[in-house]
Amino acid sequence: MVSMDTKALEKVALSIRALSIDAVERAGSGHPGLPLGTAELGAMLYGELLRHDPSRPQWPDRDRFILSAGHGSMLLYSLLHLCGYPEMSLEDIRNFRRLGSRASGHPEYGMAAGIEAGSGPLGQGISMAVGFAVAETMLAARFNDAAHTIVDHCTYALVGDGCLMEGVSGEASSFAGHYGLGKLIAYYDSNRMTIDGSTDLVFTEDVAARYRAYGWQVLQGSMYDFNEIAALTAQAKAEANKPSLIILTSIIGKGSPKKQDTPDAHSGPLGPEEIATARANLGIPGDFYVAPEALDYFAAKRGEWKKASAQWQLVFDAWSKANPEKRREWDAFHSGQADTSTAPVFKRGEEIAIRAAGNKALCALADANANLVGGSADLKGPNSAGLPPNAGVWTRENRGGRYIHFGIREFAMAAICNGISLHGGLRAYCSTFMVFSDYMRPAMRLSALMKQPVIYALTHDSIFVGPDGPTHQPVEQFAGFRAMPNLRVLRPADAEECAEAWAMAMEETKMPTVIALARQNIAVFDKADKDWKRSIRRGAYLVKRSEGKPELTVIATGTEVDLALAAVEKIGGEKIAVVSMPSRELFESQSAEVRDAIVAPGARTVVCEAGARSGWERWAKTEDILSVDSFGESGTAEEVAGHLGMTVDALVGIIRKEGR
Amino acid sequence: MVSMDTKALEKVALSIRALSIDAVERAGSGHPGLPLGTAELGAMLYGELLRHDPSRPQWPDRDRFILSAGHGSMLLYSLLHLCGYPEMSLEDIRNFRRLGSRASGHPEYGMAAGIEAGSGPLGQGISMAVGFAVAETMLAARFNDAAHTIVDHCTYALVGDGCLMEGVSGEASSFAGHYGLGKLIAYYDSNRMTIDGSTDLVFTEDVAARYRAYGWQVLQGSMYDFNEIAALTAQAKAEANKPSLIILTSIIGKGSPKKQDTPDAHSGPLGPEEIATARANLGIPGDFYVAPEALDYFAAKRGEWKKASAQWQLVFDAWSKANPEKRREWDAFHSGQADTSTAPVFKRGEEIAIRAAGNKALCALADANANLVGGSADLKGPNSAGLPPNAGVWTRENRGGRYIHFGIREFAMAAICNGISLHGGLRAYCSTFMVFSDYMRPAMRLSALMKQPVIYALTHDSIFVGPDGPTHQPVEQFAGFRAMPNLRVLRPADAEECAEAWAMAMEETKMPTVIALARQNIAVFDKADKDWKRSIRRGAYLVKRSEGKPELTVIATGTEVDLALAAVEKIGGEKIAVVSMPSRELFESQSAEVRDAIVAPGARTVVCEAGARSGWERWAKTEDILSVDSFGESGTAEEVAGHLGMTVDALVGIIRKEGR
Repeated sequence: MVSMDTKALEKVALSIRALSIDAVERAGSGHPGLPLGTAELGAMLYGELLRHDPSRPQWPDRDRFILSAGHGSMLLYSLLHLCGYPEMSLEDIRNFRRLGSRASGHPEYGMAAGIEAGSGPLGQGISMAVGFAVAETMLAARFNDAAHTIVDHCTYALVGDGCLMEGVSGEASSFAGHYGLGKLIAYYDSNRMTIDGSTDLVFTEDVAARYRAYGWQVLQGSMYDFNEIAALTAQAKAEANKPSLIILTSIIGKGSPKKQDTPDAHSGPLGPEEIATARANLGIPGDFYVAPEALDYFAAKRGEWKKASAQWQLVFDAWSKANPEKRREWDAFHSGQADTSTAPVFKRGEEIAIRAAGNKALCALADANANLVGGSADLKGPNSAGLPPNAGVWTRENRGGRYIHFGIREFAMAAICNGISLHGGLRAYCSTFMVFSDYMRPAMRLSALMKQPVIYALTHDSIFVGPDGPTHQPVEQFAGFRAMPNLRVLRPADAEECAEAWAMAMEETKMPTVIALARQNIAVFDKADKDWKRSIRRGAYLVKRSEGKPELTVIATGTEVDLALAAVEKIGGEKIAVVSMPSRELFESQSAEVRDAIVAPGARTVVCEAGARSGWERWAKTEDILSVDSFGESGTAEEVAGHLGMTVDALVGIIRKEGR
Repeated sequence: MVSMDTKALEKVALSIRALSIDAVERAGSGHPGLPLGTAELGAMLYGELLRHDPSRPQWPDRDRFILSAGHGSMLLYSLLHLCGYPEMSLEDIRNFRRLGSRASGHPEYGMAAGIEAGSGPLGQGISMAVGFAVAETMLAARFNDAAHTIVDHCTYALVGDGCLMEGVSGEASSFAGHYGLGKLIAYYDSNRMTIDGSTDLVFTEDVAARYRAYGWQVLQGSMYDFNEIAALTAQAKAEANKPSLIILTSIIGKGSPKKQDTPDAHSGPLGPEEIATARANLGIPGDFYVAPEALDYFAAKRGEWKKASAQWQLVFDAWSKANPEKRREWDAFHSGQADTSTAPVFKRGEEIAIRAAGNKALCALADANANLVGGSADLKGPNSAGLPPNAGVWTRENRGGRYIHFGIREFAMAAICNGISLHGGLRAYCSTFMVFSDYMRPAMRLSALMKQPVIYALTHDSIFVGPDGPTHQPVEQFAGFRAMPNLRVLRPADAEECAEAWAMAMEETKMPTVIALARQNIAVFDKADKDWKRSIRRGAYLVKRSEGKPELTVIATGTEVDLALAAVEKIGGEKIAVVSMPSRELFESQSAEVRDAIVAPGARTVVCEAGARSGWERWAKTEDILSVDSFGESGTAEEVAGHLGMTVDALVGIIRKEGR
């Protein structure tokens, strides 16, 4: 460690405090407690510890920093501004929490360069950081060679009490310890205060012992000793085989004379009087103060950072020259483009479980796209989630492996996939039973909000799961997913559709996809629309045409398309059209012309889906929707379907208006 | 500990193995690994350790046992049958996993007496067990007196690797350790195997150290030594101030000659050949074998158990005589009935935040119903979730307190509330921001499935949250909740509705309720329907009538009723009716006659809700729905609402068909 200019660092910390106090005051809301309490760490991180280059925020080999305690966003914004990141102006900070400012209430991914992840919901930031660290090991193993190290960076996170109370951080930390993610370093802002009061109220566990139990190196020190932070961080970096938790004892709201070290410092403006005293005590001369010494310090740093990133570029260029093939692969990995030109071929009439067809599609894509990585939450077999054998398993010993055993940790799995995706260079998929998507829903919401094309391959997608009973039978999940903004839901009806669904998911660049994969066998059916592979990309197509103008259109999704075809055949429905609609929201986003060509306007429509009715009312009258609006039961698939009326005969009854 | 008949216990274990093997085989699916591996513990628990009485399954002071690893359901069913619980016949077991059998795939609450909780989804069983233990301390503190102990029982749970990997168990266990729940005893079936393979794959943390870090007593032993289990359990019971984790090293599928100690034992039938060898080795003479010695053993036990419960009854009767007031309260607590006769009164025109009105309603109900307990996930103030001061705070020292600080652990909070509710005697509520309901959704689903009337008071219910940004602004949550079976969603529009919503939630006995509580101030509005308190119990009522038959009905919920009234006033809409619909699904369940009296059939309908459109299409054309179908933004409430078009002017535009 070179000698540090601690005087300048103090001025950086002072500037963070000044900006944070004023931004929260002007906004009339926000969280001063964390930025005031951790300003020294922030200064150290962005000044001395992080390998980064504000003039090149997308530098692939930069260190990543995730502010897991996202409510302390003013810490991050202050630092981005002081360092000279181009997308965080003083004007943004002055308009903290206002529409149009890049300084949003919580860090939002995409809002400004330098924000590596959206981290409003607690516990997910550290879990995504684990994913960043996973990605680093994978890319390092794949691309570094004996002569060139082009991937070698750390992932830093700052967590608070809230992050550590949330279960997802425990899942992810256990995972990180097991896999020995040595380049992951988390600082714990241990201020012993939450919104409700002292942590003595409800959080008295021994965090250090818990993290040691997970297999982490645990270090402890003071938040306010630059040299100690430097030494502890060096110790953390020296430990190659364990992630490190650095517990820094701190004072929430440090610098706020009356509120510091009290729960009042957590949220809300300090108020003019408190600010006046704070300024007098700290030596802050005015509004939105930035100390000139802090600016000078970072100006000098910017030169060093540019040199470091230019140095890396030289190595990268030399590596590219020595490894033209690898370089092409590197570019492909980072292009955001996927190769979906090869897909498994299925025979018409062939009976195959949709989850099994899904695995064939996944494996074909994995062969064509070496950056596709992921796995399942301990359901590799039942989810048919495995990758081709040559993809290998990612372990401590084999960082080049691509299949990840996540353990029975659905929520962390999704958050880790978000981290892998955010890191850049890799595409992530993950898999569990559809019903357990509830466990990881908060991370799926972040995928959607952050526009990350994570693929959620969710099997066992309806009450046809059968004997495992209602806790394993999804009912309301489709409705919940479809209502989520920026999430694509695909429910393929047979193996052919399944292959297309996987291709569509891989083609997405700014949206996560849920692929619902049934457990049941379905015979690949004939498709009236010969151009169905194009049509399905609009959400729906005609599986069966009517003779002449249809009197009735039956819309179905997933395995219920098969059921609909059987019902229409039973009825001898020459005047009936059958539509497969794997993605309702995609179809609904089409022009009226496109929609009308598939679902004949004016004619009666019947809908059939083994899930909650909600949302289908746009397409059919309530009495014309065959749905499942109660919990399932334990029984054979046939028994449960019969009990709930999800049968060919029930659909025939609806079509014939016989009532239910 | 009296001397045990270990020979008989061995026969009980043998019978568990025999029944479990055959039930799974006959069903063609299921999980033999756990019942085979833990049969000895099961025998000990139901024979020697649990204080229970199969002839009186609802005995209030019984010990509770929660099979947190619910996939091992055959362990529980075998024991219920062997002990003589009336609702688990051999016929049920023979029809394991078939419709109509009480032996469902996973334990379902309500399916058979003796099943204390539904525990299919991993991690939630142990978390509910924490709730049972909380309830025990509360009732003991309230009802026991110096001379009579009428509440004094333990909560036992059996957890597997999966339960301990799930984050929710970590949250709940940290909570249990903090609060020193000494009567909670969890056995960990440490068999080192999951579906994907050895736990070495992905779960190598030091569980014992982690639980010690939580503040638990951790004990270790063998699954197959009756005396050791007895001694360890005695040690656990002797520790009054800490919950205990008893780690029992075991062999998954023990008794299955080729599959035991392999992942293959986890799920699926063993197969005829394997069963034949197992039977030969173990001495099982035939199908669905129950050893006569096991039956004799339990027949003798049944006498002892009856004596113990009769003994308790004597104490209870004496206590009742000495404490007639308390006895009345006890009966009220256990009646399932709530007193909703008192409610806060608000003045028309009074401006009050709905969350604040909610607190007045909650406090009034808490005063009238001393069994109402609960709290918030570290947002007591923001959620307005506090109880009246005389209700006290539940702590280690004050077990009679009723407000619970849950910490930043939403998922565990909901699971613990399920446990409190399942225990009997208490009503539970809990509170967080609406958007973080995503974190606890899996437990809310269990509330609904188990028919537990837990109250979820969720504040900050729309994009009007403003500056905290999209991670804190719910959008799709209403749609998701409304699609969930057996969950009541209430979104009150002003303080008066809010008080009624709380009363409705308390009146429910078999259904959880979500009350959406806005952060904003709303002036209490005049209601055209003078009988609105009756009408609201059907889900909707007329806030404003039209002159004559309405040309248009505007349906709105929550704070958007105010917006709708303003829009209609602006437009001078004499021919427009305005309907407040706090519960769409309740309204939809009414007869056509009731519905038509509120929403005039034939006339145009416009809907306004600051949430996803999904499901409203039943009531209005897509273009006539003013909704929020994208994520929010960080900004003032007005900025965000303006940006998303959730304004009076936008609604006026829709009503006037001006397009959007």
